[in-house]
Amino acid sequence: MVLKMSCSELEVFLHEAFPQVARDFRVEAVAPNEITIRLQVEDRHLRPGGTISGPSMFALADVSVYLAILSMIGPKALAVTTNCSIDFMRKPAAGIDMLARAKLLKLGRVLAVGEVLMYSEGIADPVARASLTYSLPPDRSAGEAGASN
Amino acid sequence: MVLKMSCSELEVFLHEAFPQVARDFRVEAVAPNEITIRLQVEDRHLRPGGTISGPSMFALADVSVYLAILSMIGPKALAVTTNCSIDFMRKPAAGIDMLARAKLLKLGRVLAVGEVLMYSEGIADPVARASLTYSLPPDRSAGEAGASN
Amino acid sequence: MVLKMSCSELEVFLHEAFPQVARDFRVEAVAPNEITIRLQVEDRHLRPGGTISGPSMFALADVSVYLAILSMIGPKALAVTTNCSIDFMRKPAAGIDMLARAKLLKLGRVLAVGEVLMYSEGIADPVARASLTYSLPPDRSAGEAGASN
Amino acid sequence: MVLKMSCSELEVFLHEAFPQVARDFRVEAVAPNEITIRLQVEDRHLRPGGTISGPSMFALADVSVYLAILSMIGPKALAVTTNCSIDFMRKPAAGIDMLARAKLLKLGRVLAVGEVLMYSEGIADPVARASLTYSLPPDRSAGEAGASN
Repeated sequence: MVLKMSCSELEVFLHEAFPQVARDFRVEAVAPNEITIRLQVEDRHLRPGGTISGPSMFALADVSVYLAILSMIGPKALAVTTNCSIDFMRKPAAGIDMLARAKLLKLGRVLAVGEVLMYSEGIADPVARASLTYSLPPDRSAGEAGASN
Repeated sequence: MVLKMSCSELEVFLHEAFPQVARDFRVEAVAPNEITIRLQVEDRHLRPGGTISGPSMFALADVSVYLAILSMIGPKALAVTTNCSIDFMRKPAAGIDMLARAKLLKLGRVLAVGEVLMYSEGIADPVARASLTYSLPPDRSAGEAGASN
Repeated sequence: MVLKMSCSELEVFLHEAFPQVARDFRVEAVAPNEITIRLQVEDRHLRPGGTISGPSMFALADVSVYLAILSMIGPKALAVTTNCSIDFMRKPAAGIDMLARAKLLKLGRVLAVGEVLMYSEGIADPVARASLTYSLPPDRSAGEAGASN
Repeated sequence: MVLKMSCSELEVFLHEAFPQVARDFRVEAVAPNEITIRLQVEDRHLRPGGTISGPSMFALADVSVYLAILSMIGPKALAVTTNCSIDFMRKPAAGIDMLARAKLLKLGRVLAVGEVLMYSEGIADPVARASLTYSLPPDRSAGEAGASN
């Protein structure tokens, strides 16, 4: 249970691997099996009325668990999202950054499972929750990447 | 089971209500409780390697069931997505539009449920599936809109 | 955020309302928006090899969030499960009781959402997780019960 | 896409592998990637008022997709349910058998995904829908079985 990547290493990886979306996110904190990610809200994440779009929250949940996995196994692996269940529970506060707190519940040989709570910064009740499953490539220790299934 | 909105009426509504995303989608066909939506793939939907991003597929699923609901109840209502479960099963073909075929399974007084299969155009095996639940505002017959829960 | 039902009141309610399943469960602890439920494992919950069946874990998750809701709103309401997403992550230990720790994330006017982690007693890694949505009847303050949608 | 097991072979397998639950189910029809399963409703599946319990519907969905997988890969494999998302949409008719119509959407090397619609026999609107993911053991061609993750 030793972290293989720090906050800044995760951010550098995100910028190299996913340049289109990396500017949306900041890695606020990382610990074994836990991570906090910030969605830096911009106009492109908003719907009329200032609420944050569903796809933006999906992206936040997905990036959060993905980076939690990488923090544990290192940047060599290619994890593929296979399932996401997301509940939208409250309207996000207009124009405020969102924070996702993700936990890894399982990091197995072929599957990883994590869960996420998402908040408008400074507000106690969660806006959304999500659980996600990732398929891990079979030879991840060897650093090979590929579609695993 | 009479349609209250045609393909073109749904597209006009989408452009007025969600101008940021309306250009991404075309309503290909609509029938009672069924709809086909095209995601017109652009660079902004892609990940490295040309694959379509998870958030873009989530948005496609969400728009598809949302418009299927509106086609049945008219443009006055405000339906709010409360849950989405999505399975990513295959890698989308690079640079090819995606088609979503959605069915309404329930259109109740307070909840609607739909399911969606998503395909790379011209390829038989589905790329992803999703099921979504929407909360419907209590006074939708009166045309009022509001956060329903 | 005051509890309307204690552990023993919840157990009495369960025995009266669901006599077929009440003997399977014990209410271990209850606090505002949190509950711990024990599944008292018997032969009927098992699969070959001594593992606990999926339907038994589904029932445990469902009862846990249901009782968490009742602890907050009282025994008058009829909450109906509308969605459950459940992840089975590890094999349960053979012949050992399971404990479910559930949290209510939202208790709205028409919908409630909770999440559950399930453990084999005495083992740190969770066996399964679930999130559930309930539809609440419109007149619950009046004590009326009925299919709400 | 040739079937490896017939209706009667699937039923025999179910009785040998899962004797506790096999009497609940009948395999009505099987075709490549499709199966129809009957839940023979007995008192033990019911809740007060005659409605069929959530765990019974979960079990029906789970068995249906599991047998659909076995019909395609044969009785040698051990498939493990890793995720289920289920929507309960309507109240089942009291005391009437339920029919599940399941489709395999993906049968990959390590994961299989199926979806199910469940009906009260003779009634057109579905009572529930579910989607399930199974982890397939790595050496299934060799006939070995084991917990795969």
